[in-house]
Amino acid sequence: MAKIGKLTILLLISSEEEEKELIKKITQAGYTYCIGKAGTMDSNAVIGAIETAAKRAEIILKDSYREEHALYHTALNALRGLCRGEIGIGNLLRTVGVKFVVLRGPMDTTKKDLGEWIAVGIYGTIGAPIKGFEHEAIGLEINPV
Amino acid sequence: MAKIGKLTILLLISSEEEEKELIKKITQAGYTYCIGKAGTMDSNAVIGAIETAAKRAEIILKDSYREEHALYHTALNALRGLCRGEIGIGNLLRTVGVKFVVLRGPMDTTKKDLGEWIAVGIYGTIGAPIKGFEHEAIGLEINPV
Amino acid sequence: MAKIGKLTILLLISSEEEEKELIKKITQAGYTYCIGKAGTMDSNAVIGAIETAAKRAEIILKDSYREEHALYHTALNALRGLCRGEIGIGNLLRTVGVKFVVLRGPMDTTKKDLGEWIAVGIYGTIGAPIKGFEHEAIGLEINPV
Amino acid sequence: MAKIGKLTILLLISSEEEEKELIKKITQAGYTYCIGKAGTMDSNAVIGAIETAAKRAEIILKDSYREEHALYHTALNALRGLCRGEIGIGNLLRTVGVKFVVLRGPMDTTKKDLGEWIAVGIYGTIGAPIKGFEHEAIGLEINPV
Amino acid sequence: MAKIGKLTILLLISSEEEEKELIKKITQAGYTYCIGKAGTMDSNAVIGAIETAAKRAEIILKDSYREEHALYHTALNALRGLCRGEIGIGNLLRTVGVKFVVLRGPMDTTKKDLGEWIAVGIYGTIGAPIKGFEHEAIGLEINPV
Amino acid sequence: MAKIGKLTILLLISSEEEEKELIKKITQAGYTYCIGKAGTMDSNAVIGAIETAAKRAEIILKDSYREEHALYHTALNALRGLCRGEIGIGNLLRTVGVKFVVLRGPMDTTKKDLGEWIAVGIYGTIGAPIKGFEHEAIGLEINPV
Repeated sequence: MAKIGKLTILLLISSEEEEKELIKKITQAGYTYCIGKAGTMDSNAVIGAIETAAKRAEIILKDSYREEHALYHTALNALRGLCRGEIGIGNLLRTVGVKFVVLRGPMDTTKKDLGEWIAVGIYGTIGAPIKGFEHEAIGLEINPV
Repeated sequence: MAKIGKLTILLLISSEEEEKELIKKITQAGYTYCIGKAGTMDSNAVIGAIETAAKRAEIILKDSYREEHALYHTALNALRGLCRGEIGIGNLLRTVGVKFVVLRGPMDTTKKDLGEWIAVGIYGTIGAPIKGFEHEAIGLEINPV
Repeated sequence: MAKIGKLTILLLISSEEEEKELIKKITQAGYTYCIGKAGTMDSNAVIGAIETAAKRAEIILKDSYREEHALYHTALNALRGLCRGEIGIGNLLRTVGVKFVVLRGPMDTTKKDLGEWIAVGIYGTIGAPIKGFEHEAIGLEINPV
Repeated sequence: MAKIGKLTILLLISSEEEEKELIKKITQAGYTYCIGKAGTMDSNAVIGAIETAAKRAEIILKDSYREEHALYHTALNALRGLCRGEIGIGNLLRTVGVKFVVLRGPMDTTKKDLGEWIAVGIYGTIGAPIKGFEHEAIGLEINPV
Repeated sequence: MAKIGKLTILLLISSEEEEKELIKKITQAGYTYCIGKAGTMDSNAVIGAIETAAKRAEIILKDSYREEHALYHTALNALRGLCRGEIGIGNLLRTVGVKFVVLRGPMDTTKKDLGEWIAVGIYGTIGAPIKGFEHEAIGLEINPV
Repeated sequence: MAKIGKLTILLLISSEEEEKELIKKITQAGYTYCIGKAGTMDSNAVIGAIETAAKRAEIILKDSYREEHALYHTALNALRGLCRGEIGIGNLLRTVGVKFVVLRGPMDTTKKDLGEWIAVGIYGTIGAPIKGFEHEAIGLEINPV
């Protein structure tokens, strides 16, 4: 097995087939996870989709501000990586179609004494609101939770 | 095969073993590539390492400003994604240990009429200048060349 | 007495009781001031509330672009300090509940030859649009006027 | 004649009279161009106006993502220069009234072997949504196309 | 008593006399703290001074990456607030003379079930490297630890 | 005659011949000015060159913090426009060769009741530290003084 960031990236770029295999390994290694999609021109819709999916999958405790805070800042910075600079989608006349992954568990499956961490990865296309006028982008952030 | 961004990401997270396999496929699909490493506290050293490696591997023409310009801005934004915000390493009291990949070729191996594109990916660890006090980060940018 | 920034901060964190005491001293020391509140997800609403309050309190001359310009940039940067990075509230799926203070007068009550300055301070909570899921933040900017 | 950036700037600050003269020279030197105006509080409206005008004037090929991508990033960075910092207009409670110029051709009329470049320039006023409460600003970006 | 942010701000703007009184209350309320100073043109020196002081005062466990990570990002964002925009001191030809405070304990002394949080506050002067050519600035960040 | 920003831009792109003509008009219209050059990889060297030149030309009073503050922030934001994003030169592995202009006087020669304003313009080339691998950029900021 591997590190939380690499696992998040692997899930992001997996086909549905590969996902199943990976999820089995990830779950056995002690991670909780969720996977979702968002197609939008609103930055807050990307963050909202990630937060909702993570809460539904019980990756974070719904009533814990500490955990929500960690998830929020992880999602925000993953989005910043995706945007490569200031966060902005529709206000910069572009749109995104992305898959996102939230992973919670050890930072490194070989060093379990580092406690629990949360990773948010976002991968997909960013581009003009014209079909095919888009290229790939990725964002990843990792924080203790 | 797949898109230029996904191929760059796959190379970034591959073991040396997996790299060989991937490189074969990538080369057959018409890509030129280079792979390198950088461990530094200076942002310009990351950009410099990428530019030097790409020129040595003849991914861009050494005497073409157009191509150097495309590579530079691609590397700069990949670094911005890695830093998740403003570009800064040592000035923010942190250090990076990264692998980078430059790929040049079709944006999508199934749509060759889009011309040539260049992708720069950077993946590794970012953290305090203390052994083990670091986590993973990734940055990716794609531009026409 | 003290400096314009410290006075602004003191007013920001004062209870209504303490405010009265402070305002007396501040007024005697030659400052004009206003205090207001804003609860919003829109960055421009924070700036607008500050500008409106400052004009009503006649801290700046309503018809002077010079003064409005100084106030605007002071408010903008105070908001930037509050946001700790790029300015963004609702677009980043967060909300603010803040008190703001505008102070105009000497930069330092012991050095009156430095002319008039304007300070804008913003203090309150920033967080998720969920009750209690928020923490404190502060922003302060000072400019000659 | 001169460089693409200087020509763009000259067009931006020309009166309608001067424009005619300049356009004659610019066209003879092998440039295609367009000139437009935008008065708005929305950043995406500025980018949209530039993209639409450039496509109508056939400065870029409507169906080429490569060219649209070059134009988009050039417009985006010109807007960033105009905003002197993060891109934001209405969300920062300000408004712009600008003229924009898109120029395509040699980077330098004396060095034609550098291939084709695209320049976007934006010049006008930025300020409060109050008549006369505004000052000038300029933004310029240049990319190979 | 009050919230962690307000307490941090109060310590920042206290005289040495007032500090003693405050520290007594803060300690009784279950906080650990440290106070320090930094006069520098290097951003990393501000972060380094805060980290060193917090470790010496045993506010964070020296060997815990989780805790160091929380402290680092809290210090980084407090510095961002102080700089009101991108982080930069000497590279922007300015210098800072600041007092900093690190506080660890409840976010709100009346709501102890929110767990432990860490606050970093920085307050002082920022300005030209010319005596007296400087004004006040403040930065504050709060994170769970 | 025209506005302060347009005059600054005109001076920036003038040949030495044209400069003389312009300076005569500008001086008659009540402006003080200075013109200088900087070739560097250090952001603070650009700001320093502008400040030194403006003080020598007595555009601002050497002993006035108010005036130095206005000049500094005007220069800083002009540099931000030149950099089109975060301020950075050598740390981003690029270099600049620029001409700068500082102008002080009416914002608009037809509206003298707006008081005195200061404009800083920077124009030149930015690019790789390789001869010829560079393109033009411009930055402009205007503030009341």
